[in-house]
Amino acid sequence: MNEPTSPSLIPGQTPSQTLPANKPSVGDSGVKVTALLGGVGGAKLAWGLAQLLPPQHLTLIVNTADDFEHLGLHISPDLDTVMYTLANLANPQTGWGIRDESWNMMAMLGRYAGPTWFRLGDGDLATHLLRSSWLHEGFPLTWITRELCKLLGVRHTVLPMTDAPVRTVVDTDEGSLSFQEYFVRHQWQPIVRSIHFKGIESAQPTQEVVASLRAADVILFCPSNPFVSLDPILALPAIRRMLAASRVPRVAVSPIVAGQAIKGPTAKIMRELGLEISPVTVAQRYRDLLTGFVLDRQDEAMRATVATELGLHPLVTDTVMQSDAARIQLARQVLEFAAQP
Amino acid sequence: MNEPTSPSLIPGQTPSQTLPANKPSVGDSGVKVTALLGGVGGAKLAWGLAQLLPPQHLTLIVNTADDFEHLGLHISPDLDTVMYTLANLANPQTGWGIRDESWNMMAMLGRYAGPTWFRLGDGDLATHLLRSSWLHEGFPLTWITRELCKLLGVRHTVLPMTDAPVRTVVDTDEGSLSFQEYFVRHQWQPIVRSIHFKGIESAQPTQEVVASLRAADVILFCPSNPFVSLDPILALPAIRRMLAASRVPRVAVSPIVAGQAIKGPTAKIMRELGLEISPVTVAQRYRDLLTGFVLDRQDEAMRATVATELGLHPLVTDTVMQSDAARIQLARQVLEFAAQP
Repeated sequence: MNEPTSPSLIPGQTPSQTLPANKPSVGDSGVKVTALLGGVGGAKLAWGLAQLLPPQHLTLIVNTADDFEHLGLHISPDLDTVMYTLANLANPQTGWGIRDESWNMMAMLGRYAGPTWFRLGDGDLATHLLRSSWLHEGFPLTWITRELCKLLGVRHTVLPMTDAPVRTVVDTDEGSLSFQEYFVRHQWQPIVRSIHFKGIESAQPTQEVVASLRAADVILFCPSNPFVSLDPILALPAIRRMLAASRVPRVAVSPIVAGQAIKGPTAKIMRELGLEISPVTVAQRYRDLLTGFVLDRQDEAMRATVATELGLHPLVTDTVMQSDAARIQLARQVLEFAAQP
Repeated sequence: MNEPTSPSLIPGQTPSQTLPANKPSVGDSGVKVTALLGGVGGAKLAWGLAQLLPPQHLTLIVNTADDFEHLGLHISPDLDTVMYTLANLANPQTGWGIRDESWNMMAMLGRYAGPTWFRLGDGDLATHLLRSSWLHEGFPLTWITRELCKLLGVRHTVLPMTDAPVRTVVDTDEGSLSFQEYFVRHQWQPIVRSIHFKGIESAQPTQEVVASLRAADVILFCPSNPFVSLDPILALPAIRRMLAASRVPRVAVSPIVAGQAIKGPTAKIMRELGLEISPVTVAQRYRDLLTGFVLDRQDEAMRATVATELGLHPLVTDTVMQSDAARIQLARQVLEFAAQP
């Protein structure tokens, strides 16, 4: 193993997109990073991190509470988004699914008047079919995720937060909805009253998740929806305890920029839950678990609040990742920030 | 109901391809036809029959012993071939699957090094996903088949031979193989020693199958593989008993023409089982169940054997269905032949 002794986490070099495994490289500083994330937004930062850090130094702990059963398939939307993004297979328009996808299964399902509200691309189906049949054979989701990643050439570690079934339930003005019903079928239009995670009491993080958090030199909260992507991970009691007791830098990147969510219902849910639509709301939510918080330049005005009222180290930078370069740039800055004493 | 009293089964009119339901038409003679069949060859004749007979007068009893579980899906190859053929969706090149199909799931499955030996088209997957999830919910295959057919606009009755699991097992020089392993994975190259139908002892034909055979004025054996398509249907004791005791015309169309099978392994299996590759072998096999037997013109020489040695009424005609017109032509001749006193 080549582990340079440089104290700097990320030397200021141009990152190479394909890091050779056994050669010193920009990320080969020996610092182990574990990041918590959900789907599209989190996956963008994870991709940036993966360009900078060698495989053995980046572990991604992914929300599985939006997993669901559909047409007899076990679907893990967040795991798939992270995996496809790291494999450079993700659809750049949607952020989820596979690029250059075809939709003939859906077309035929439509002829059958079948349930077409959840869009399943033809290529994407191979993932669901393999995962579902392996689960049916008794393999744990962690093992399956490792296999699928390996087969797609993803070398960084992607871990489901748990192998146990945990399901987000959104209580709304239109009744209690499973997460995908709320998010996809109803396009997050119902008014959210509360959110809970069915099965969370008896779920345990996997050994791999625990080991990764224990070994981490830096823990990152990616800019994912706090209510439905990060909260489920943090609702696993063992994870929350480890994070609260941790002594390593723990940094969150705000998913709220200039009073809006970059994508998805984060801001809308905040309003409906009676919370201020602000990065400070996110920082406050995770205050006891964090040491630092990353704000977008557009929210520069909140730097002082984060620093003095919440006692978190603030970093103000560009957090909207509209290009591959921006993903790498943010990843680099977050890593450098986390490495500061 | 309009039921003309003409004693002739099929008046010599040009068949219309879309028969109005409530108008007298070429097939509206009141004669109820039930046909037994397997996949591609049988489905061609069934399609011809469906152009001549109104929906309520044609029932197709389809082999399900080549059904199997694959990637967590329940696949019913013969039911699908019959359904797609009647829906005018079948792939004209292969005879099975859907026309204008795409193969992106298979391509992605290949990236995962998954099991690609059984080709599943993207559109076709909708059928397997719906059927599998309905089976999982507890609906019987008969109900599911009716639903799928209805949704594809198939108005004639397609019945699985049974709702119970029956599985063809082919004992070969390369060991005991499930039918699809033998047929698709090994491309019917292993030498067949014997064939049996797992689960047949406890399987019952459905009420619908029994009622259809009881109501039938004519029973047809389509030109399907005797060993793996018709034998499983006839191995259901209740069906064999009903056929043996029946007093209505029962006519088989030979799947062997000029010492060859039109398609598939029929002739090869005959040889390997030590049987003569001849239509007479088929006629002999079903002798106690039949009243008539249809030979191709190329096998004219066997007319006498069929008539005198086996005591079956022979019909010699063109049986190779290379066009839609030929399918209708054969269907018409078989129906007219069966209606002869």
